[in-house]
Order: sequence, then C-alpha cells, then structure tokens
Amino acid sequence: MVIMEKLTLVKVGGKIVEEAESLKQLLADFAKIDGYKVLVHGGGRSATTLAAKLGIESQMVNGRRITDAETLKVVTMVYGGLVNKQIVAGLQAIGVNALGLTGADLNYMRSEKRPVKDVDYGFVGDVKEVNAGILSDLIAKGVVPVLAPLTHDKEGNLLNTNADTIAGEAAKALAKHFDVRLVYCFEKKGVLLNENDDESVILKLTPTLFKKYVDENVINGGMIPKLENSFEALNAGVKQVVITRADFIHTGNGTTISL
Amino acid sequence: MVIMEKLTLVKVGGKIVEEAESLKQLLADFAKIDGYKVLVHGGGRSATTLAAKLGIESQMVNGRRITDAETLKVVTMVYGGLVNKQIVAGLQAIGVNALGLTGADLNYMRSEKRPVKDVDYGFVGDVKEVNAGILSDLIAKGVVPVLAPLTHDKEGNLLNTNADTIAGEAAKALAKHFDVRLVYCFEKKGVLLNENDDESVILKLTPTLFKKYVDENVINGGMIPKLENSFEALNAGVKQVVITRADFIHTGNGTTISL
Repeated sequence: MVIMEKLTLVKVGGKIVEEAESLKQLLADFAKIDGYKVLVHGGGRSATTLAAKLGIESQMVNGRRITDAETLKVVTMVYGGLVNKQIVAGLQAIGVNALGLTGADLNYMRSEKRPVKDVDYGFVGDVKEVNAGILSDLIAKGVVPVLAPLTHDKEGNLLNTNADTIAGEAAKALAKHFDVRLVYCFEKKGVLLNENDDESVILKLTPTLFKKYVDENVINGGMIPKLENSFEALNAGVKQVVITRADFIHTGNGTTISL
Repeated sequence: MVIMEKLTLVKVGGKIVEEAESLKQLLADFAKIDGYKVLVHGGGRSATTLAAKLGIESQMVNGRRITDAETLKVVTMVYGGLVNKQIVAGLQAIGVNALGLTGADLNYMRSEKRPVKDVDYGFVGDVKEVNAGILSDLIAKGVVPVLAPLTHDKEGNLLNTNADTIAGEAAKALAKHFDVRLVYCFEKKGVLLNENDDESVILKLTPTLFKKYVDENVINGGMIPKLENSFEALNAGVKQVVITRADFIHTGNGTTISL
C-alpha cells in the first residue's frame, strides 16, 4: 500500500473573498492548515457588480449565470484577474507560495461548452478532463494552487465553470496523488439537524445516515445535491469531505462526510 | 563552460494582443519559435477602454499610467485576467503549454511602490527581486510563462509595472539559467537608418555603433532609452536583444543588438 501525503482542498464562496476584512481572516485561517493545500474561490458578487456598472444584466437560472460573450469577459476579468490575484498576493504576504490558475493555465482543466437543452447557458463549461500531474508536482514542491472558476475548451475559449464543480473535479483528480480532504465552506458551521439551531451540527455523515436524514426530511433542499456531490467525490477516491463555516477550515470542525 | 539551452523572451505591446485577428497571428508566429520561450504582454488600450466605461479617467505622465486604487483594480482585471487568460487559452489551443503569471504568482517578481518625487504614480511598482528558479524549472519542463505587467510587494498589494520593464528584468534573471534572446516588438521592422524608409533597418547594433548613430542624430527620441535598456540587459547577461515587428518574431529579422 502506498502511503500518500495529505492535501486539503478548500472551496470558499464569493462573499468571503470579496471583502477585504473577511478575505484577510480567511487567508490567515487557510495558511494554518497543515500540509499541502489548494484554494478554490468564487466571485459571483463582484462579477454581478462589475456587470451592472458596465450595463450588462446578470441573468441567473437555477443559481447559474447565463454567460454571453460580454459576461464571459466580465467573469474572466473578475475571477481570473481581480479576485484570483488579490488572493494570491494576500497569501504571498503571509508566506504561502500561491499560484493563481484558470483551467487554461497548464491546461489543467479542460471543459466543453454545455449543450443547449432547455436553457442556453452560453459560455459555460462542463468539465471533461483534469490534468493533475503537473499540478501535483508543483504542490509537492510547496506551491499552493489558487483555482479560479474558469476552464477552457482547448480550442481557444475560456468557459465559466461553477466553483463547487472545479473543487470536486480537482479533488477527484488529485486523489490519485494525495490523500485528499475536500472542505466546502458555507454560512453555517455544518449540516444542521435542526435548521433553526446553528449549534445542531451533524458531526458525521455516511451514505446510510444521509439516506435516513433525507427520508426523515432532516436534510432537504439545496443541501441534497451538495451532499450527493460529496458522496460522488468520495466514491471517486477523495478521502473525506467536510462541510463547515470558513472560520473553521483549520480546526477540523463541521460535518465530516465519509463512506 | 556550461552550455545553456536557448530561451526566447518576446515582449509585445497592447495593441496586437487586444484584437482577436492580430492576436491569433501573433500566437501562431510565437508558437513557431524554436526552443524554450516566454511571452510578456501589455494591455493598456483595453485598460483605458474599461476605465472609461467605468467612469475612471486614465491619467498618463511620461507614457506611464497614474494608478490610483480604482485604476489598480482595472489593470488587475484587464492585464491579469482578460488579456492574460485570452493569450493562455489561445496558446493552449495551438499546443503551447502556457501558464499566465503576475509577479505575485510563485512570488516570481517582487517590487516596491514607487516613491513619490515630482509625480505620484500611485500603485506602480519598481522591480526589486526576481525569483527565476521555479520559473526556470517550469520552462525546462516545457511550460511557457505568459507574463502580465503586474508585480506585487509581498505585503499583499499588487502593483502596476511596465511590460518593457517586466521583460527586461525577467530576461536578466533567466539569463542565469538560459542563453536568453530578448525580443521587443514594435510597429517597425527594426531600428531604422532613415525614419521615412521602413526598409532601412539597421541589422546590427553595438555600443560603438549606437554612440555613433546618436551623435549623428540617426537614432533619437524614444528609441534612445529603449536601446539603453537593451544594452543594460546585455551587460546583465542577456545574450542578444532584437527589436522587430511582431510578424517577424520567428524569423530572426530585425535589429540585433549585442555587445
């Protein structure tokens, strides 16, 4: 049996990385995580703000941004430029050797433009291939990749790709090289037994418990696909998925999901 | 004597990379260059356009952009995001394993905010340190860095830095690892003997010839600091500097400057 080194891949949403104070705290907490690490970020609020200033309407369907040509430019600027580079500079300031990447950089994540069915999402990419080799080599040298929610089709086009998806796909591919813990940050301390009690965190979830909680309607709504994605990542080799609040990423607190 | 591998570092201005057609041609020509290579790009026109759309006035002094906090965001989006990532995706499409970088990424280029003397340039960085080691390792693995005109101060701030300067400093640092040829693209086929005759390219320039042409007023104006920078790069270990038009980068044509 090969013993693999531990790697923590943290996904944070837009809000926390888009305000200077919360970003600073997040980066300090992230820096405290032992061992190899990767950060995946969103940036939707800043994209919406910039689009509005430029007179481009932000159209969302099922929580996903319809990405026309002008909107693609906006998200390329905001995700690949502003948000990504501010995170990279912030991490470098505290001694973390960050490297900002879109899927086009090093061709690490290739996608295909989503086929038009009921909805034309525009320049949105579904992930087809993750080249984790060169990424793994860099990580093993102490480099900390900072992944923007952008991929490319290897035909010259950048494509907008959901940050949760980037995190899941990167975690699965890196699981061939590392013992991967995937941490999804959201606004609660974990998956709650009682949605009105922020302290009622379910500490451990397994497929059996998940089924039970869904049957009992304890777990419902948007949490179901999030957890289904988590189990998919576990089935694909990721060791552990944690759902927690951003200020807990270095503590191990939250809901730990395993097979 | 250590025999070093050849590396060509090409600097292109904004205009050529900001229009889809000319960018495509440039990338095709760049891809034809044999051996290791690096691309440094500008993006000033797009920055000015975006700033104008956002109601931010672009103020230039001595050809340099005054970079206040809002302008810094604009150039971070345009240079680090839009222009850089479009180049990276375009190169990946033709089989070049590009990696887009600002100075903050891998901490490859650290600068300090320019001290205020006669002019307050704002968030503009003067280069202080280039860490070419990790860049060289990547290049030796076939990675082609695409350098945006942005640096950082390692205190969390990105800084706007002239693309010619990025090219010169990167070339000097890489000269410790490679036999570096630095190619500056501009709108003419080379340095001209007669400014009204586009075919009167001076094929070879040495310090002695440069002095002679300056004394005779054959070379004057903005070409003088450009050539002084070229000689400085040569004195710091760069093997050859070429000044040429973008469509000649793969041919070896243009003005070749050497000691």
